[in-house]
Amino acid sequence: MTKINKQVQLEQQPEGTPNEKDFRVVETEIPSPKNGEFLAKNLFLSLDPYMRGAIAGKHMGHSRLNQGDLIGGRCVSEIIESNNSTYKVGDRIVIESGWQEYVLSSGQKEHGIRIINKSKSSLSASLGVLGMPGLTSWAGVECLSKPTLGETFVVTAAAGPVGGTAGQLAKLKGAHVVGVAGSKEKCIVATDQYGFDACINYNDANWLDNLSKECPKGIDVYFDNVGGLVLDQISDQLNLYGRIILCGFVSQYNNKEWHGHNLGKYVGKRANLLSVVVYDYYNRFDEFLNVAIPLVESGRMKYKEDRVVGIDSAPKHFSKLMAGKNVGKAVVEFG
Amino acid sequence: MTKINKQVQLEQQPEGTPNEKDFRVVETEIPSPKNGEFLAKNLFLSLDPYMRGAIAGKHMGHSRLNQGDLIGGRCVSEIIESNNSTYKVGDRIVIESGWQEYVLSSGQKEHGIRIINKSKSSLSASLGVLGMPGLTSWAGVECLSKPTLGETFVVTAAAGPVGGTAGQLAKLKGAHVVGVAGSKEKCIVATDQYGFDACINYNDANWLDNLSKECPKGIDVYFDNVGGLVLDQISDQLNLYGRIILCGFVSQYNNKEWHGHNLGKYVGKRANLLSVVVYDYYNRFDEFLNVAIPLVESGRMKYKEDRVVGIDSAPKHFSKLMAGKNVGKAVVEFG
Repeated sequence: MTKINKQVQLEQQPEGTPNEKDFRVVETEIPSPKNGEFLAKNLFLSLDPYMRGAIAGKHMGHSRLNQGDLIGGRCVSEIIESNNSTYKVGDRIVIESGWQEYVLSSGQKEHGIRIINKSKSSLSASLGVLGMPGLTSWAGVECLSKPTLGETFVVTAAAGPVGGTAGQLAKLKGAHVVGVAGSKEKCIVATDQYGFDACINYNDANWLDNLSKECPKGIDVYFDNVGGLVLDQISDQLNLYGRIILCGFVSQYNNKEWHGHNLGKYVGKRANLLSVVVYDYYNRFDEFLNVAIPLVESGRMKYKEDRVVGIDSAPKHFSKLMAGKNVGKAVVEFG
Repeated sequence: MTKINKQVQLEQQPEGTPNEKDFRVVETEIPSPKNGEFLAKNLFLSLDPYMRGAIAGKHMGHSRLNQGDLIGGRCVSEIIESNNSTYKVGDRIVIESGWQEYVLSSGQKEHGIRIINKSKSSLSASLGVLGMPGLTSWAGVECLSKPTLGETFVVTAAAGPVGGTAGQLAKLKGAHVVGVAGSKEKCIVATDQYGFDACINYNDANWLDNLSKECPKGIDVYFDNVGGLVLDQISDQLNLYGRIILCGFVSQYNNKEWHGHNLGKYVGKRANLLSVVVYDYYNRFDEFLNVAIPLVESGRMKYKEDRVVGIDSAPKHFSKLMAGKNVGKAVVEFG
């Protein structure tokens, strides 16, 4: 076993869309677990858009990062040494590890550890469809907006792990599901893999007309992952008393000035604006997995990954994600 | 009977807060009712903040007014001639009359006519606590936000007919009720007449601290009548999962550019933003009155009017209302 633990640290606060220069890859020593601690080798790292805001200190529960700070992120990991009776060598876990090859933990709650030995699904799925993004989708669909038979459900970032899972859950509940995504390729994933009824490419000039054609009875639920102008534009097609799930603001994370919403138009629609914050649903993770694991294992719920290999690839892959060029859940596989 | 029907027309679109120069008082002839029509003499005219937006064409269902157009507004009226079998001479009604002394009507639905003979309360109350403002309050409190025992309910424009009634309804339902208003005089109305637990003057420098002191357990329901920055500021004190009733935007009606809200902070609160549009509740007017009339007649629900006499006074009184200098429901009594 090598003694080197490569990790990615912040080099400088990104201006706008992050690029590789904002990060640095550093070789550190692999720590040794003391009494009560364990050491895990990371297998997969999750890259998530909200981490852009977290780096800048704009995400709840994350303080702004400074030069030299480890970038945060969840990993699927395997425990390789343990002095902690709860976690055994060979256990596979999800853990708030940060962008590094090895992680030392005392097993405490703030490390967000979940043992995933029981799931037969691909390990990396625990970072996407069976992880925090999946739980987010479930909370927004099943707990908050509750789309039903005959209703039209629209979701943005439709090829991503939150949007893709949300649309599939709404489809399973009988709604007419229309995705919105940033490329033809992403739209094909939404329709051909996820089974959405339609998907609109918002880079087409007439995309709002196209959306209207695919939603002939108007929109009952809009699951918003992007915020900003797109939220305002899609909400123009919301039916009276429609529900809007405010889930993500990916259009805004790279901006200095956030888009300001004129709430008057939402009042005109009598829109019910509901926010989903996944942390509120952690105590219901098992309830979600009881639904989601059988769906994934039976092939009724699909997911797609955009995977690279090696921690050195993480900065470039994150930059691609933040530029909207990924297709599917962005994951780094450790070599 | 004089042959003159004085009416107030638009002279020019107001810039910012309206003033008397934006209106003109014109003498027209009193029309004669044809077959199926009736003529009513107006007794009281309601002045409402939303009319500011309606004049500018920014209110739903109202087209922008041009020079010479009659200003819109509801009146309590008495029918003095009738060729319509539904409406008899002597009937007292609420009618969408506009700012004028007499109104001719075919009795059709779009005139928004309600016969109010049954109510023993003061006739003018049918323009405030027992009218559209009262119905708005009831919808926001009873149908949407449902404050209950142990909860803290905050309402802006606390001395006005919507805010004052909303706070009293919340108080009757057992909530701890704190008003926010623009002067010491208004606050005294809210506490001493309406029985609110406290009322904060937002023109005091430390008003947000004062609000915090009166809401030691945070805010569960915020009934917002002003919009803009105040909405953002008060929402900072909202409890997680709190409800916000979006009812009015009086802080914005005189502005060219509307205040843009960063929805991120509402997501952080998991706020449930609910809009109240009173038109949606017209079919429940009787249900509301069944609650409200006994409360008013028994003195358990109070109201206050800011009354002037004569249609010539309407422009100046409306200007006072839009400058926030009224205390209570703004009404014009016909001479």
